[in-house]
Formats: sequence, structure tokens, C-alpha cells
Amino acid sequence: MDLKNLALGRHVLIEYYGCTTEIIENNGLIEQYMREAADHAGARVVESVFHHFNPYGVSGAVIIAESHLTIHTWPEYDFASVDVYTCGDEVDPSKAADYLSVKLQAKKTELMEIPRGIAGKIKQFANQRDNKKPEKIEMEKSEG
Amino acid sequence: MDLKNLALGRHVLIEYYGCTTEIIENNGLIEQYMREAADHAGARVVESVFHHFNPYGVSGAVIIAESHLTIHTWPEYDFASVDVYTCGDEVDPSKAADYLSVKLQAKKTELMEIPRGIAGKIKQFANQRDNKKPEKIEMEKSEG
Repeated sequence: MDLKNLALGRHVLIEYYGCTTEIIENNGLIEQYMREAADHAGARVVESVFHHFNPYGVSGAVIIAESHLTIHTWPEYDFASVDVYTCGDEVDPSKAADYLSVKLQAKKTELMEIPRGIAGKIKQFANQRDNKKPEKIEMEKSEG
Repeated sequence: MDLKNLALGRHVLIEYYGCTTEIIENNGLIEQYMREAADHAGARVVESVFHHFNPYGVSGAVIIAESHLTIHTWPEYDFASVDVYTCGDEVDPSKAADYLSVKLQAKKTELMEIPRGIAGKIKQFANQRDNKKPEKIEMEKSEG
């Protein structure tokens, strides 16, 4: 059974409970860890944007060639919520999740993975093209 | 039954199948629609970052005071994949989803909502503080 072509992307949603407060309120550290997490997953970082909220919390996104990572932290609750969305076979989002679990010093990590862009539905609903209907979904995009 | 305090955030994952190709390959238009979608949801846009990939596709993130929106488009498949993650009671992520469904001219929209940051687990794992343990989770953050 060939499982490769079922979906375009893998989306991992991770909740980090009981993180170290001082880490998840540090904007610079969070941006560094998120970019390092992308590296650990095998992704190529394109751009990132991070914002520190007053009085608490960091929100940020890292655009990677293979989709994105995002984070929101609630230092007052020692809680951080992360998404890692990747496409292609070269990148493993669970490696980013594991890396951040260590770096944020989470007491409890909960993770779920959701396939994104179901190939069968893409084929069903794509517009007709002259010789361009995507009969075969290529999982590997060079970028994007 | 009070449902307000079960989770910090609402995360809506949306797949738009059969979009209009010319729209979802247009970086400027996608950024505009994403920022407008945030407005429609009642969110406050803080920053955004968008990237156009060669040869196909747009990836972008909008950081809002209430969390984020992201998008990835595959014009070659007429497919776009969006996330709208919000916290607080003032913002309705489904309004952003509906707005984009119209703007991307999707033939088929599929949506699921996942609660993020479960209050009971936050209380269970938060570090002990002097008079600061979050016995009461405030759903309304002024920002973040």
C-alpha cells in the first residue's frame, strides 16, 4: 500500500504545559528556538516574524520553504502552543516538536498530527486545464 | 454549564479545494484577503509576512493580537490551506473562514475546529507561584 500520495502536508499541533516561565516570556529566545526547531526538522527558513505582547506572551511565525511553524506563549500559565506544518518527504515536523519540548522545558507535551490537502479531494475539485489536470499529485515541491 | 473556561484558544483548520488559480497565485491579493479576513473575524492585525514561491504558491502569516492566521496555496492544484487561531471571546475565527471561502472562490470548503490550551491541563501543570497559581483562567487577554 502506497501511503505517500494521500495528502500534501503534515500538520502537527503541539501543546506544551508547565514550561519554564522565564524561557517562554523571552521573545529573542523563543525566536531562536523556533528557527532552530525548523532546522532540526530539516526545513529551510525563509522569513520569520515575532511579536512580544505587553504585559505577557510571545507570538511568532516562521515561514519555511515547506510551509510554517507558529508559536503563542502564555507565561502567566507556563503554557505554549505550537504548530508545525510541513510538505514534502524531506522534513519531519515531529523533530521540531521534540526539540521545542526540551528547549521550553515542558512538563507535559501533547501532540496531534493532521494531514492537510487530501489528494483525492484536490483531484476531484481542481479546475479543468488543457493537459494540466493534476492526475498525479507530486508530493515533492521544490518549494512551497 | 459554563463552557467559557475550557480552553484558551479556538483553532480552525480550513481546506479550500477548487479555488480560482489566478487568485491564489497572486501574492498581493492573498495578503490583502488574509488581512481583511482577520478584520472580518474582529481581530487586530499586528504584523504580517508573505512569501511568493518560484514557480508556484504563496505562504504567509498574519500575527494578530489574538494569535494568528496562516495560508499556503498550491495554484497548480487550485488548493489553499488556511489556519485561523484566536483567543478571547471577541474574535470569531469562522467569520475569517467564510470570508476567504468567498474570496478564493473555493468550490469546496472543509473546516474543523480544535480547542487549544486546555484550562484543566494548564492548571495541573503550571509551576507553583506565590499567590500566582492560575486557579482561575482568564479567557480575555488584553493582547496575545
